[in-house]
Amino acid sequence: MKERNQMSTGLWLIGARGSVAVTSMVGALAVRAGLAGPAGCVLESPALRDRVRPGIGDLVFGGHDVSPLPLDKKAAALADAGVVPARLVEALRGELAAVEQEVRPLPEAATQAEVARAIAADLDAFRRRHDLERIVVVNVASTEPVPPAHPAHAGLDALRAALDEPGAVLPSSALVAYAALDAGCPYVDFTPSTGARLPALDELARERRLPYAGSDGKTGETLVKSVLAPMFAQRNLTVRSWSGINLLGGGDGANLAEPGANAAKAASKQRVLAETLGYTPQGDTRIDYVEDLGDFKTAWDLVTFEGFLGTRMRMEFSWHGCDSALAAPLILDLARLAAAAHRAGRAGPLTELAFFFKDPIGQVPHALADQWRTLCEFVAALGAEDASR
Amino acid sequence: MKERNQMSTGLWLIGARGSVAVTSMVGALAVRAGLAGPAGCVLESPALRDRVRPGIGDLVFGGHDVSPLPLDKKAAALADAGVVPARLVEALRGELAAVEQEVRPLPEAATQAEVARAIAADLDAFRRRHDLERIVVVNVASTEPVPPAHPAHAGLDALRAALDEPGAVLPSSALVAYAALDAGCPYVDFTPSTGARLPALDELARERRLPYAGSDGKTGETLVKSVLAPMFAQRNLTVRSWSGINLLGGGDGANLAEPGANAAKAASKQRVLAETLGYTPQGDTRIDYVEDLGDFKTAWDLVTFEGFLGTRMRMEFSWHGCDSALAAPLILDLARLAAAAHRAGRAGPLTELAFFFKDPIGQVPHALADQWRTLCEFVAALGAEDASR
Amino acid sequence: MKERNQMSTGLWLIGARGSVAVTSMVGALAVRAGLAGPAGCVLESPALRDRVRPGIGDLVFGGHDVSPLPLDKKAAALADAGVVPARLVEALRGELAAVEQEVRPLPEAATQAEVARAIAADLDAFRRRHDLERIVVVNVASTEPVPPAHPAHAGLDALRAALDEPGAVLPSSALVAYAALDAGCPYVDFTPSTGARLPALDELARERRLPYAGSDGKTGETLVKSVLAPMFAQRNLTVRSWSGINLLGGGDGANLAEPGANAAKAASKQRVLAETLGYTPQGDTRIDYVEDLGDFKTAWDLVTFEGFLGTRMRMEFSWHGCDSALAAPLILDLARLAAAAHRAGRAGPLTELAFFFKDPIGQVPHALADQWRTLCEFVAALGAEDASR
Amino acid sequence: MKERNQMSTGLWLIGARGSVAVTSMVGALAVRAGLAGPAGCVLESPALRDRVRPGIGDLVFGGHDVSPLPLDKKAAALADAGVVPARLVEALRGELAAVEQEVRPLPEAATQAEVARAIAADLDAFRRRHDLERIVVVNVASTEPVPPAHPAHAGLDALRAALDEPGAVLPSSALVAYAALDAGCPYVDFTPSTGARLPALDELARERRLPYAGSDGKTGETLVKSVLAPMFAQRNLTVRSWSGINLLGGGDGANLAEPGANAAKAASKQRVLAETLGYTPQGDTRIDYVEDLGDFKTAWDLVTFEGFLGTRMRMEFSWHGCDSALAAPLILDLARLAAAAHRAGRAGPLTELAFFFKDPIGQVPHALADQWRTLCEFVAALGAEDASR
Repeated sequence: MKERNQMSTGLWLIGARGSVAVTSMVGALAVRAGLAGPAGCVLESPALRDRVRPGIGDLVFGGHDVSPLPLDKKAAALADAGVVPARLVEALRGELAAVEQEVRPLPEAATQAEVARAIAADLDAFRRRHDLERIVVVNVASTEPVPPAHPAHAGLDALRAALDEPGAVLPSSALVAYAALDAGCPYVDFTPSTGARLPALDELARERRLPYAGSDGKTGETLVKSVLAPMFAQRNLTVRSWSGINLLGGGDGANLAEPGANAAKAASKQRVLAETLGYTPQGDTRIDYVEDLGDFKTAWDLVTFEGFLGTRMRMEFSWHGCDSALAAPLILDLARLAAAAHRAGRAGPLTELAFFFKDPIGQVPHALADQWRTLCEFVAALGAEDASR
Repeated sequence: MKERNQMSTGLWLIGARGSVAVTSMVGALAVRAGLAGPAGCVLESPALRDRVRPGIGDLVFGGHDVSPLPLDKKAAALADAGVVPARLVEALRGELAAVEQEVRPLPEAATQAEVARAIAADLDAFRRRHDLERIVVVNVASTEPVPPAHPAHAGLDALRAALDEPGAVLPSSALVAYAALDAGCPYVDFTPSTGARLPALDELARERRLPYAGSDGKTGETLVKSVLAPMFAQRNLTVRSWSGINLLGGGDGANLAEPGANAAKAASKQRVLAETLGYTPQGDTRIDYVEDLGDFKTAWDLVTFEGFLGTRMRMEFSWHGCDSALAAPLILDLARLAAAAHRAGRAGPLTELAFFFKDPIGQVPHALADQWRTLCEFVAALGAEDASR
Repeated sequence: MKERNQMSTGLWLIGARGSVAVTSMVGALAVRAGLAGPAGCVLESPALRDRVRPGIGDLVFGGHDVSPLPLDKKAAALADAGVVPARLVEALRGELAAVEQEVRPLPEAATQAEVARAIAADLDAFRRRHDLERIVVVNVASTEPVPPAHPAHAGLDALRAALDEPGAVLPSSALVAYAALDAGCPYVDFTPSTGARLPALDELARERRLPYAGSDGKTGETLVKSVLAPMFAQRNLTVRSWSGINLLGGGDGANLAEPGANAAKAASKQRVLAETLGYTPQGDTRIDYVEDLGDFKTAWDLVTFEGFLGTRMRMEFSWHGCDSALAAPLILDLARLAAAAHRAGRAGPLTELAFFFKDPIGQVPHALADQWRTLCEFVAALGAEDASR
Repeated sequence: MKERNQMSTGLWLIGARGSVAVTSMVGALAVRAGLAGPAGCVLESPALRDRVRPGIGDLVFGGHDVSPLPLDKKAAALADAGVVPARLVEALRGELAAVEQEVRPLPEAATQAEVARAIAADLDAFRRRHDLERIVVVNVASTEPVPPAHPAHAGLDALRAALDEPGAVLPSSALVAYAALDAGCPYVDFTPSTGARLPALDELARERRLPYAGSDGKTGETLVKSVLAPMFAQRNLTVRSWSGINLLGGGDGANLAEPGANAAKAASKQRVLAETLGYTPQGDTRIDYVEDLGDFKTAWDLVTFEGFLGTRMRMEFSWHGCDSALAAPLILDLARLAAAAHRAGRAGPLTELAFFFKDPIGQVPHALADQWRTLCEFVAALGAEDASR
């Protein structure tokens, strides 16, 4: 009989065959096998190490995806693109094949209520097969366009009724959030899509005593903004304009070049300025698709600012990052934090996780240093909670 | 009879005819006259406004300089260079002429003890003429080469004895610090020179119940480093190399191109990395003189870093700033803070002012956000102290 | 009786109150008065100096504009923005007032034929008042959206007939070109608008033995592209992507942010790549309006390329230029060259002037070095022509 | 019996186990085997293709090196560093092993004359073993410090006499050049070292009717300078300052960080400015070693310039290139061109090859476009020569 790992935690990825998901799988498996270190995992930094359970090695992977591309094929493609080392993909072939068994197509049905029940059934089966203490559902699927408003978004009863009718009441990400919460699983949205951010879903999370978190992982240009903008504010320098362009390839790039998704993302990217400066400087953030850049992204920003007696100055930066490599370790962090928060009895939005997001839920600080302090305190509190049991 | 302003505070500048000093004079006079706002003054940012006395308008300027260039000529040159608006220089002609009366050559004498006494006499006369509550001495003179060690630096008695002998026991900045402290004046060093950072001078400051602060104002590239380096640390990204070059014109540039001064400055500039990352990445910071850049500086930095599973990424930034315009408002902040700390009875190094310095005194945080929090708490404490009187 | 200057040449500017036009006026007047040198004037570079008549001092300014803003007001605004020195505007007040007399509103009328006749009347009066040998009309007005096609664009007879009807057959720039050519004046278009680039207008130019030139002055990012792209080609390095963004303020920026004008401009900006590389790399050029940048522009480009055995490399550049200051001296060059070409009997498109344009007329080289050689030969031929008379 | 390839040409590399040499070997073998295209080879660009014999496939490799590192080990290291594809190194294992037989240690002896004779013996043996029509010797060894002058450098007779004495009359690169020329082999120097640039060696080359070429391959920052500087000149824009820094790892970086080699290289890098602008702008070029950058280099340049009426503008660029990948195909080009020139009877410096060098021999144009034209004409002349036989 299999001995039960008290901390065994499912990490169910929506978009499980995408770059971010597969990078996080390869990475977690490599760390567990001692083949790689946990660089990029915030919970493994010297300040936070060994504080949060479950650990990386306690995570069990599964998920949904519309794509049929096998995980090993995707992993090989990521190795070719320089995102993960080829030797790891080779060494972890067996482990990836095991995860492959846990990835299935997104269910389809006549009503969204039925789809949600099918998702819940997938989650339940996953839990039973691996004797999991809990499952965290994390959305890393492609960004959706901003959905139209619907009256049933405002309350849980109305929503349940509407879901029983044919037609799309919820965008896909919110339907998944609904299904996850209804099945007792914490939900994290790493994309700018709607996810759990509807009054009806907040109601559901509180009713079920479940935490949720989001939105839109902060991996590059916005991360830099979240430290530079406070710097200007603290020095009492007036930012006159902040303009930027993001050039990116890969599937994410192609999707974000769609006007709808683009608008959702770009708005999310400029929010940090108003929040940390106290005013909105001129300028926009552009997102352009350049296939040749593959899984890497180049962002360039120009900041013009004004100092003593009106003197005009400027700053430029270029950021050349690999979004999948930056996002994947944060996925592991978020799954562990959501699981620990659930165990600690937290329900509703995890505002303490603003550190991870471009567009964090709630009235929270947007300066990275403040978010970091909040996170450290949160981790300390979770650890104290854990120790007291 | 002249009514005494309880808060009237002397700001005695070493290097009073230099770009930073004259920009701070023009600015303070302009702010007092309502001709300009206090952009760049940290104590006038929304978070700290109206907390610290004296205010900008309470400052009375004087100082020493080896240069004979009249202040109005220097101010006109700064206007031509785009550092200060010509209309302000024009409007403040009378006020500048008044300050001109308070700037004198650095005293010379047979022994350094005699020089110190002559400096003290200048300070005393300045205090009497303006009925000043106190004087803060701030060093903004050219950077000195790193001086040779001398046994008399280790203790005050030995130092006093040695100063009575002919010969240079102290570098110029430290002699000025000695004279200022001996004359009862708080001392601030905005340069990387020695200033008050000798055991003998620390002893003197504590004996006289005087605060001092330094070193090396953080105005550009290092300011940016002090927010970016913590960002990499918090995200558990390994910085592999951090290289940079500073191109600057003006008198400061010519001086810093001297190998001795250059070495002092460059060491000061890289310290933030080791302190915030916990290790020293590869790479150096260069300083090159390019006359054509005038009072503006362009710094370029390249950061290479490593993330999840060893993925290599990079960031570059260019900073185009006007050092005098960035430094001058901080001079006003520092004079006000040192005065308020003195009034509150603080003695010894003001470690809470690390926010302002590249190479702060003491075991203090080097991440800007932590320094900012410390500063805010310090200002709050000073305010409470003030209110209780 | 006024002595006739054989070379006295009118420079009639469409958009005479705009930044480029007024900068060119201030500059030409300053050069003539010996108050400034001819930096930026290609015909005054060491290689071409003293070869082309008329000289800068032989130019007499006039023009049309829809704006009522007086030239001295515009010149003062340009001085405030750092485009022209305030001392020149002050010194040239009288000369500018004289030019003011020669700027008038664009005529309006019931049919485009009548408008053209009114323009011609303005040109004739200008010629007579100043006893001008000839007038060159140069368009520096705001960029128009790409106009709808019209059958009458194909031939001169059809065009003449159509112009007599009410309604807009020609966009404004082409109507001006028609009027100028019909009045015997060479026409140059410095904008991406239609100008003389219609079969009917080419027919008119050849019928009247008049030269014309265009389109879209090459002042910044495209200038750089026109030397970098040939470099990659000559080294047999494959450019994979070339992406860029132009941030600009000023009136031109606001206009180019309009989707129609933007599309016209962006297409013009990428053409150099296909023409010099022999293929079209991935990537686009964006134009964004940032009011704070005023008359200055920042362009950033990212080039990714592939070398030996497929090694991937990259290059970035930032260009911080003042479009008016870059364009104005070229306006003087073009007026002089068009006048000299007319005197030499040239008719039809001046393909030898490709050096000046983003989107040159005809099958011409797009590499700057080839265009430079062609220009040098053209200047030499004009000089020989001149000398032989 | 082996059939003789009329064009079989030896390419004898000094520094044969270094990055550039091994990359050129892997590349040439890959092109010959049809495993890779000739990207980066100038003679294979559309404009010059199929004009010069020998072809890439006609080259037979050999060389000297002080390092004992086997070629396959070096090739594997280059594959790990991303300079060459691992699959090519794998596929060409046999061919590399064959080349390994032709690489030997640099001879040592009591006098430089004896060393030269030993080098010549190695070259003769190589020629016989492969029945080579001729051998071109190309120096890609580490940059030497600038050597002290010696009277024997001035003439061949004095040199021969001096070489028979003990002691170092010639730096290593010049000794190799002497040996190569004395053995009837054209010599190319791709480094900034002395090579054949001594009057005595020029005398030897002319006496033996041998061509030689150099110096210092133009692969990155200087290549860009050689197109941007003419652009500024042609537009009559005054370059005020041009400053740059080169950050590079690899063995070349470590060597160039030595002050002696650094000075030689930096001087070579700025020469293009004075030559193409007609004056020397302010600013320097720095070279810094950053081990982490490996075989890649990042160069950053800042150009400040002045346009019409003194308006100040600026440009920055960053170049991220792989020096070995940029240099290796040029080595193949140069060997082919030197061989073809020798066959055509050319003796003395090949000034037509300035296109390839930072510091070309002779009074030649430094603008890349002019050098390109010269190269094209040279190739055409060689082709005509070839066809006439």
